[in-house]
Amino acid sequence: MTEDEFIQRLRGHATHIAARGLMDDAAVLGDLVLTHDMIVESVHYLPNDPPADVAWKLLAVNLSDLAAKGAVPEGVLLGYPLANAGWDAAFADGLAEALAHFGVPLLGGDTVSAPAGAARMIGLTAIGRSSHAPDRRGARAGDDLWLIGAIGEAGAGLAIAQAGAPGEAGSDGLLAAYRRPRPLLAEGRALAPLAHAMADVSDGLLIDAARIATASGLAVAVDLGAVPRSAALTAYAGDDRAARIAAATAGDDYALILAAAPDDATRIAAIGATRIGRFADGSGLSLHDRDGPIPLPRRLGYEHRRD
Amino acid sequence: MTEDEFIQRLRGHATHIAARGLMDDAAVLGDLVLTHDMIVESVHYLPNDPPADVAWKLLAVNLSDLAAKGAVPEGVLLGYPLANAGWDAAFADGLAEALAHFGVPLLGGDTVSAPAGAARMIGLTAIGRSSHAPDRRGARAGDDLWLIGAIGEAGAGLAIAQAGAPGEAGSDGLLAAYRRPRPLLAEGRALAPLAHAMADVSDGLLIDAARIATASGLAVAVDLGAVPRSAALTAYAGDDRAARIAAATAGDDYALILAAAPDDATRIAAIGATRIGRFADGSGLSLHDRDGPIPLPRRLGYEHRRD
Repeated sequence: MTEDEFIQRLRGHATHIAARGLMDDAAVLGDLVLTHDMIVESVHYLPNDPPADVAWKLLAVNLSDLAAKGAVPEGVLLGYPLANAGWDAAFADGLAEALAHFGVPLLGGDTVSAPAGAARMIGLTAIGRSSHAPDRRGARAGDDLWLIGAIGEAGAGLAIAQAGAPGEAGSDGLLAAYRRPRPLLAEGRALAPLAHAMADVSDGLLIDAARIATASGLAVAVDLGAVPRSAALTAYAGDDRAARIAAATAGDDYALILAAAPDDATRIAAIGATRIGRFADGSGLSLHDRDGPIPLPRRLGYEHRRD
Repeated sequence: MTEDEFIQRLRGHATHIAARGLMDDAAVLGDLVLTHDMIVESVHYLPNDPPADVAWKLLAVNLSDLAAKGAVPEGVLLGYPLANAGWDAAFADGLAEALAHFGVPLLGGDTVSAPAGAARMIGLTAIGRSSHAPDRRGARAGDDLWLIGAIGEAGAGLAIAQAGAPGEAGSDGLLAAYRRPRPLLAEGRALAPLAHAMADVSDGLLIDAARIATASGLAVAVDLGAVPRSAALTAYAGDDRAARIAAATAGDDYALILAAAPDDATRIAAIGATRIGRFADGSGLSLHDRDGPIPLPRRLGYEHRRD
């Protein structure tokens, strides 16, 4: 059963306006923004990743959902399975460090005893407030697609961690992008009042851009050549079309993408975003660069599925 | 590491007033009440429990935390690991039924792919509003301890389910108490304005009463003979002291206990609660009945622990 099929069975009970048809990263209840993301061993992190990094990532991915709604975090609730005293203590200390770094209080949650040998699965709920919470469904035909933040670095960092070969020149920054993502809270707050739609790039640039288009009933064209690449990523992975497609379909970046009116281009560029595409009437995702159209890769990003 | 030891490491980052020192069932942010509870296969439910009952229970245990704060539920977020299409579909349908029963909308959440073979672990966050959210720490010396709801029925239901012997006379109600607990939302709302402290009995009457006393810096004396027992429970388990201690230390009841001034006794009794004890200066839990003091059992209730 895919995520979509599961959600479909519950959609009839998500008719409250705050649920936004379950098509958004977060629920918006008045000025309140609520999100819940889980992190699963061997799915979202490697079993040998340091526990403090796992704690950081769990907090960061949830704060990234708040960033996509332009929200100021108010606090978090933790759902934690106790499993191994050493790992649990290192996780708690890492979470404490991350909470201090982002200035977010722990408000509550639940700890349970995990069955021995089970893969670890940790949940976090983040609560924030936003006076302008852009909807994923709000893009308009003619809007530009903008990106702020790095794309592909976390995917490269994951490959480095999996290969067990950190220490190569430039790999530290890529590993950090994978293990300690930075939610773009300030950027999200600055962009939210200008965004017709906004989302974070958790599953991959192409799949998340396509989701905004689908939710808004539009087509979106992405200029692969316009997607910025850091020197470290180019040094690690090259800069040909295959490398650019790999970056645009890797997950875990926690960049932000948004749809905005062309009239606001100057203000959005001043915040540091890059224009990478455009929304139009129609449906579907298309890809191009200055040499012309690019066939879509078979896989646009990460989709949760289990049969 | 115990739940308390884990929480202790994070307490320095839970200084926000809403966190209530992590000693409460829920966080209280202005009039907003937030709770997150998880349900774990083989810990909170049996692997062969029907998926729809597991969904019901997950929702009910979270709504019970809202009930203990006198809150009206506003919605829930689900954290769900996709694992098996048939089970997942039955769970989704059961959750839809439970949401409809309690009139609570699904606002959002997260689905992930679960590692094959892992024990299932499902999280839910519930949000509500309350104009009077009693704190677990607010009991005063001289307050009465009150109980509303059944004690020991879910424990008996669990024993029946484990023995695989449903169908005995009277066992249906006990099984239902275990599989489909009823959060006391209306009762919680009626009692909250009168309660100095209130909590739900999720881990056992004695341990949860002791937690209110500890959080309030008081002693509490419980009259075991005053704890009501249904005819079904007495028929199944008898009514001697051992049976009464077993009921008072079994978990999963989702009754409510509260501390209130003796002056409010008539109003509280009119809501349907039973007086079962008293708070006093000092510390610790003591147990008695009309025949005199009763030695404390070694185990007061359920504590999550993993070493």
